[in-house]
Amino acid sequence: MRALSLTDRGPIVEAARANPSAQVGDALIRVRLVGICSTDLELIQGYKGGFRGVLGHEFVGEVMAAPGATEWVGKRVVGEINIGCGECSLCRRGLGKHCRQRLCLGILGKDGALAEFVTLPVANLHVVPDEVGDEQAVFVEPLAAALEILEQVHIEPSTRVYLVGDGRLGMLIAQVLALTGCDLTILGRHAAHLALLEQWHGSKTLISTPEAETLLAAEAADVVVEATGSPSGFAAARRLVRPGGTLVLKSTFAGDSLPVDLSGLVVDEVMVVGSRCGPFAPALRLLANGSVQVLPMIEARYPLDEAMAALAHAGQRGVLKVLVEP
Amino acid sequence: MRALSLTDRGPIVEAARANPSAQVGDALIRVRLVGICSTDLELIQGYKGGFRGVLGHEFVGEVMAAPGATEWVGKRVVGEINIGCGECSLCRRGLGKHCRQRLCLGILGKDGALAEFVTLPVANLHVVPDEVGDEQAVFVEPLAAALEILEQVHIEPSTRVYLVGDGRLGMLIAQVLALTGCDLTILGRHAAHLALLEQWHGSKTLISTPEAETLLAAEAADVVVEATGSPSGFAAARRLVRPGGTLVLKSTFAGDSLPVDLSGLVVDEVMVVGSRCGPFAPALRLLANGSVQVLPMIEARYPLDEAMAALAHAGQRGVLKVLVEP
Repeated sequence: MRALSLTDRGPIVEAARANPSAQVGDALIRVRLVGICSTDLELIQGYKGGFRGVLGHEFVGEVMAAPGATEWVGKRVVGEINIGCGECSLCRRGLGKHCRQRLCLGILGKDGALAEFVTLPVANLHVVPDEVGDEQAVFVEPLAAALEILEQVHIEPSTRVYLVGDGRLGMLIAQVLALTGCDLTILGRHAAHLALLEQWHGSKTLISTPEAETLLAAEAADVVVEATGSPSGFAAARRLVRPGGTLVLKSTFAGDSLPVDLSGLVVDEVMVVGSRCGPFAPALRLLANGSVQVLPMIEARYPLDEAMAALAHAGQRGVLKVLVEP
Repeated sequence: MRALSLTDRGPIVEAARANPSAQVGDALIRVRLVGICSTDLELIQGYKGGFRGVLGHEFVGEVMAAPGATEWVGKRVVGEINIGCGECSLCRRGLGKHCRQRLCLGILGKDGALAEFVTLPVANLHVVPDEVGDEQAVFVEPLAAALEILEQVHIEPSTRVYLVGDGRLGMLIAQVLALTGCDLTILGRHAAHLALLEQWHGSKTLISTPEAETLLAAEAADVVVEATGSPSGFAAARRLVRPGGTLVLKSTFAGDSLPVDLSGLVVDEVMVVGSRCGPFAPALRLLANGSVQVLPMIEARYPLDEAMAALAHAGQRGVLKVLVEP
């Protein structure tokens, strides 16, 4: 099959990689569409883990075979990306996505979906309802990650929330936050993105400048979501959260560690919440009922043979979602 | 009056400092007993804020005068230590203890209780019930700080909790955690302290060693409380919390910042909770009903004239509570 693989020499399009094979409990999936994510670009740049293999973890596809679970064959599906060992104490406590031996699709020890075929345990799959087209379904994985914030933090309708970051993930976070009815302001760097958020949900937005930050810091928020993954974004987010408030970290940061004023967290009684992958079922519901807009975030669509051009496009500043069709 | 003051040249016992005067809304309190806290020692060492004035914030006393609130006169009281401006947006939202213009008794802009007399707003006072003696009441402020953990984090009876630190504050935290029925293990450095905790609440304890940490890390906890204020304690606490778990920071750290692996917090979805001052009313209830043991924590009692010796004693390794009687 054709596939986009990350090798020691960087990413390459392979013309004749061996098809993956599905074991009992797995589904063999023909990939219909894949989204390129910042994590893919970071893997290529070597920021994370040293993954080698087929990239891609945001996908929609069709089940071609499912040994022992043939009822899945023919279903259009999306898939959760973490595969726990199923036996350790974390897996037994329902924390399989945090299993220390986990595989992660296209990220950690498991070939991803930027290929004609991919396999996943059927336990990871969700059927895509007919109302959700492929170009929406491909957003389920990052939309689920955005929803994870609401799994972890109780955002009340009257909560004052600031979101720092209007990139790929920020655009989805902004929308799920807006759906709570909370008093949301988005601090971003891309006027075009902010204009979309204003149009979709009437969100308040501000271009990120020192002056804008100072303005917002004067009425610090109950909850601040950091979605830039940059040290300056973290510093801004910390400054914008009120004492006793909550700072949600939604992006990882390049490099090992950042200096953090832990005593300041104690004195101000701030809660810092790390947030990663989230629930697929509500993401599918929100796409099916039209509450979250994703189609206008699609910037381009490339065939798999042109995946290198797709990566280059996705890496340009301010570009939202680039799709690849195997 | 006599008072222990922190000056540019260090702490001194003053023999003839002017008495404080109570304004309308304030109480003038004759101090009966004061506890020395690690914060006092850190203020003397210059770790915090550059406070100058009378030290001491853990006290019990008797109201001598209360202009405009004479019903308080003669009452035996303890007092909350933060004094907000009452007018800013934080104070208006009930967050007066975080007011950016706040005073803090014996810590920030407000003379403390290591003196014959002290003043506080009557709004800060709590009457001490007869069942609670002076030597117990002097623990209300740190016990309230320990209880703040339970205000912020829902510790369920089946939660697995590790406490790192068995110092002055750790001994109180250990007790309020044990009262929840949670599965608690205390990692400490003082065999005598740990023996007390085993005796009082049947707590599981371990002397902190690399081997003990490794043992506990294999069954990482839902909630870890850091009560050492040392970088090594923070590193241990971070290692001991399970993915998706909560790390409570209960002590401030000397110096500006520590390097923190924020990406690790994101990937493991750990929640870090800064925790400071807490509620006095439940602290008084738990002392009144005998649920929390404090008298065995008292190591010595000094007259105010010998406050310098009291400070030296409190600064010795492993010493729990040293009291001063004005």
